[in-house]
Amino acid sequence: MKIVEGGVTFPEGFRACGRHVGLRKVKKDMSLLVSEVEAEFAGSFTQSVVRAAPIERNERLKKNGGKVRGVVCISGNANACTGQQGTLDNDEMAETLANCIGVKPDEILTASTGVIGVWLNMDVVNNGIKNSVPFLSADKEDAHEAATGITTTDTFIKEIALLIEIGGKTVKIGGMSKGSGMIHPNMATVLTFVTTDININKRLLQKALNECVNETYNMISVDGATSTNDMAIVMANGLAGNADFDEESEDYQTFKEALMFVNEKFAKDIIHDGEGAMKFMEVSVFGANSKADARALAKSVVTNNLVKTAMFGEDANWGRVLAAMGGAGCDFNIDNVRIVFRSSKGSIVLMEKGIPIKFDENKAAEILRKRDIYIDIHLAKDGFMATAWGCDLSHEYVRINGEYRART
Amino acid sequence: MKIVEGGVTFPEGFRACGRHVGLRKVKKDMSLLVSEVEAEFAGSFTQSVVRAAPIERNERLKKNGGKVRGVVCISGNANACTGQQGTLDNDEMAETLANCIGVKPDEILTASTGVIGVWLNMDVVNNGIKNSVPFLSADKEDAHEAATGITTTDTFIKEIALLIEIGGKTVKIGGMSKGSGMIHPNMATVLTFVTTDININKRLLQKALNECVNETYNMISVDGATSTNDMAIVMANGLAGNADFDEESEDYQTFKEALMFVNEKFAKDIIHDGEGAMKFMEVSVFGANSKADARALAKSVVTNNLVKTAMFGEDANWGRVLAAMGGAGCDFNIDNVRIVFRSSKGSIVLMEKGIPIKFDENKAAEILRKRDIYIDIHLAKDGFMATAWGCDLSHEYVRINGEYRART
Repeated sequence: MKIVEGGVTFPEGFRACGRHVGLRKVKKDMSLLVSEVEAEFAGSFTQSVVRAAPIERNERLKKNGGKVRGVVCISGNANACTGQQGTLDNDEMAETLANCIGVKPDEILTASTGVIGVWLNMDVVNNGIKNSVPFLSADKEDAHEAATGITTTDTFIKEIALLIEIGGKTVKIGGMSKGSGMIHPNMATVLTFVTTDININKRLLQKALNECVNETYNMISVDGATSTNDMAIVMANGLAGNADFDEESEDYQTFKEALMFVNEKFAKDIIHDGEGAMKFMEVSVFGANSKADARALAKSVVTNNLVKTAMFGEDANWGRVLAAMGGAGCDFNIDNVRIVFRSSKGSIVLMEKGIPIKFDENKAAEILRKRDIYIDIHLAKDGFMATAWGCDLSHEYVRINGEYRART
Repeated sequence: MKIVEGGVTFPEGFRACGRHVGLRKVKKDMSLLVSEVEAEFAGSFTQSVVRAAPIERNERLKKNGGKVRGVVCISGNANACTGQQGTLDNDEMAETLANCIGVKPDEILTASTGVIGVWLNMDVVNNGIKNSVPFLSADKEDAHEAATGITTTDTFIKEIALLIEIGGKTVKIGGMSKGSGMIHPNMATVLTFVTTDININKRLLQKALNECVNETYNMISVDGATSTNDMAIVMANGLAGNADFDEESEDYQTFKEALMFVNEKFAKDIIHDGEGAMKFMEVSVFGANSKADARALAKSVVTNNLVKTAMFGEDANWGRVLAAMGGAGCDFNIDNVRIVFRSSKGSIVLMEKGIPIKFDENKAAEILRKRDIYIDIHLAKDGFMATAWGCDLSHEYVRINGEYRART
């Protein structure tokens, strides 16, 4: 696997652009992404019962099983809680792009992020699409503009490009993502678009994406909120020309590992970009009774407000870690528990065989002063492991989310 | 049901005291509660996998099915994560009280709250018990001292006394509780002790308590943390002399409703007492598909950090309420959703039939300026309802819990 500079236009046959069309005051608010040839696609969508119009559309297209040619994504308006009108507007958005590039409407996916409960201004949207299409290009600068167009309160642009070898052919993967944990004005939407020129069938592509989402986006938490608009999409147009492979093959493993790398990078980027977040926390649980237990325990620690405030306060408070685990609804033997806090400044053991260890407060303070903190929890010699990512809970979080009305 | 002044010594045959014995610097740190005659008892204990020594002991005594004569409760030390030595110390504490009042050790329950991972100073504990026993009395002042002795960072004392009529006899109920949501130094323990002179069998008493705990303590959340030491205990000594009754009887309903009233009061008191909490939030869900769904949806709203910060910011942010519900894992039809915010200043409808309603911002601001905020969520005409209670997420919460090390 080789990482290079670039984004969604790195794989063969993809073009993109990011433009300001007037949905927001100044910021780029529309991104288009098009494949020159038909692409298989896989999608993973929000588990929320409250789902925005693009989610419903993309789920339908996924179920229909057809191929796609492009995506239109807007930022500034989530098109959620907008009823039947929202559905019609969303379909019109896809139709406009389809007409502009000469494909069928059902070959266009949609995405949106922003305020909820507000209808779209369709003149702005339709004109925006028409005016943006001429800017579609395969330049990496335009991939970057597209990665900018999908953001909302993100403080940095999240993109990636890499290459792998599949069956003797070079396969390229590109990606862009948005999501800045803390939420303005309503909730943080995670949007990820991955492009690749690999030749892969739809079922395998979806299988790989599901495994990735489960280990990445489903293991991050900033504030436990689920957005109405979350989605991760992978488009694979086959232009790399590699031979078919099945799920038992090494090729599948190679591709899945690369896709995992991309999605794990984006998941961590989203945590790093949390508005108000001062700390990045990676919690790994080893030796759990099941994979599900390992996941639940790790997530229970990263989502716990007391652990989060302890991180903010740079406090080596193992008691809160243990309490969070105790409440996760998973069985483990406390007499085997070992808890380690780590950072680039070193590591300290805080609990061994379930008994608190006297530790050097100065060393703990030095370790916790770093931004990236790692918490390792060992429950038994054998068993299952999982990693979750989260951030601290800071004054800034309360300010941003509590004083929204005052700021807008 | 008649509420009167008093606490755990209001029912016939109970004596109590609360003393400073030296586990903490100044605050009262030991409470004793004794019944002159054998009492049935029921208990509900923390669901955490990490359980303090008193939890293990009381669970064992509950399983054995015997009656009890008293409780010794200490504050300042949780006796959790203290291994085998912690178990021995806890048993010794019970034995000392048993010897002092001439009963069997297995007739004494224990409770503790405070720092975890630190062994008890048993000289202080044993001398404390011996020196406290002479102060046991049935005066309401001593009930109040006992209610003080069990507290940690609580800002007010939580107790109650009331009487009901069961089978022509006057039955008295008293109670004391502690728990102040936000947590110092490790987690908030909820301890509740209810006394009553009702004549009731053990199975019915436990059944009534289980129903109450499910509707009260299990429906409050300050920060989602589960303590190692949580317990609710009811002791019933039968001195009221009422005839036996079964679970189909009106007598059982009368008793259960009174017990519910006591526990709901304590649950709300604990939320009101949250350190750093500026707002009290009561969320009721109506018309859910099942009782479990109604509970999950209501809890999902009160535990959501974005809803909590919106409350702190006095922001009528229905989008966050809806998003929290969407992520609860329960099915509902968004096209029927009605959301109402209320306080003593009036009420506003924010969403009707799933569509956002334009509302008067000034009126919303006036309503949300009050401390106690009520959120009503209607999902359908028929169906199940549940209520959950929570508080806001304030700067003070982050300060208290993030800067613990700096303060101590």
